Amino acid sequence: MKLGKFIVVEGLEGAGKSTAIASIMSKLNTVGIDEVVSTREPGGTPLAEKMRALVKEEHGNEPLQDTTELLLMYGARVQLVETVIKPALHKGQWVVGDRHDLSSQAYQGGGRQIAKQTMSALKQISLGDFKPDLTLYMDIDPRIGLERARGRGELDRIEKMDISFFERARDRYLELANSDDSIVIINAAQPIAQVAEDIDSALSHWLGMNV
Amino acid sequence: MKLGKFIVVEGLEGAGKSTAIASIMSKLNTVGIDEVVSTREPGGTPLAEKMRALVKEEHGNEPLQDTTELLLMYGARVQLVETVIKPALHKGQWVVGDRHDLSSQAYQGGGRQIAKQTMSALKQISLGDFKPDLTLYMDIDPRIGLERARGRGELDRIEKMDISFFERARDRYLELANSDDSIVIINAAQPIAQVAEDIDSALSHWLGMNV
Repeated sequence: MKLGKFIVVEGLEGAGKSTAIASIMSKLNTVGIDEVVSTREPGGTPLAEKMRALVKEEHGNEPLQDTTELLLMYGARVQLVETVIKPALHKGQWVVGDRHDLSSQAYQGGGRQIAKQTMSALKQISLGDFKPDLTLYMDIDPRIGLERARGRGELDRIEKMDISFFERARDRYLELANSDDSIVIINAAQPIAQVAEDIDSALSHWLGMNV
Repeated sequence: MKLGKFIVVEGLEGAGKSTAIASIMSKLNTVGIDEVVSTREPGGTPLAEKMRALVKEEHGNEPLQDTTELLLMYGARVQLVETVIKPALHKGQWVVGDRHDLSSQAYQGGGRQIAKQTMSALKQISLGDFKPDLTLYMDIDPRIGLERARGRGELDRIEKMDISFFERARDRYLELANSDDSIVIINAAQPIAQVAEDIDSALSHWLGMNV
């Protein structure tokens, strides 16, 4: 039986990931792929959601260490990949992910400035050679993205970081997207209809080549 | 100001770690070291205790992955070391730990058979060069130790592993203890009075050399 494919949507807060995911789901449906598993990271399993909560919460007087945050992110990711994503793919189901490893590269690697050597060692320990078949990176200036996100309500511990954190995250996103053929950059600052068209076109192209 | 020292007690379930810790505390008191911080791992901070609970609990139908367990252990350790142990040592306080990194080497490395390369990469990421000044490893045959531990009540997720898991953990404990001068092996199968005497004598010897 043919294996399923793993498509991931990435981007900063307010880049329009949820809308993009909805477009992808609907596109997959129109081409007859209707058994699609959707995941979010960090989280996506009962245990990984508990780890997500530890990352998102404030911890009173106890500062969450950058390395602890990183280890929690990878712990949650291993749990999701091994108990949800890989089993689904092996059954031939497609998986659409709201964030995956690229988020850690951008936020913890770029934003928190954790050494590249640490990032790659931990990725290797946690994922080995596993990676998405296709990633759509929704690129947006963090000033615009955060403005949109703030309109949605209260910010969590990470969303409260200052603008330079998100600028470093965006730089790392772009650096990695530009060096990996499986990552497509979508200009998320455009009007919604144009973004939707770009996603549809990127996906059509990729489906034509890969399915 | 003189830095404090970090002493750790290690060993399998039922090896008598709690009794050993009490002896050490009282010995330190008699030599005038009375501001001693005690820690336990995994745990020892509010956040690390939450991570401990995730490791100890059963998770219904969701199997906790070995790598996730390992990442949680190291996340909790980073949190404890950076927010409790290092600040105490820098203030000149002594720290006595109920378990530390050697437990991960023994249980996850030996017991769960996680590759040595993974173990050492994660240790480096999490701890760098930080290590205890002295470790007392309470050595016991797991058959005897588990018998004692079972007498104390219900077993957690890890304590329920089969005997070969604990035999591999003990082998790794001994292998590492024999290759590191800062680890003293105490024969914990002896009568309690003899164990106490051996701990006292090991500690006296070490204090004489190091304080």
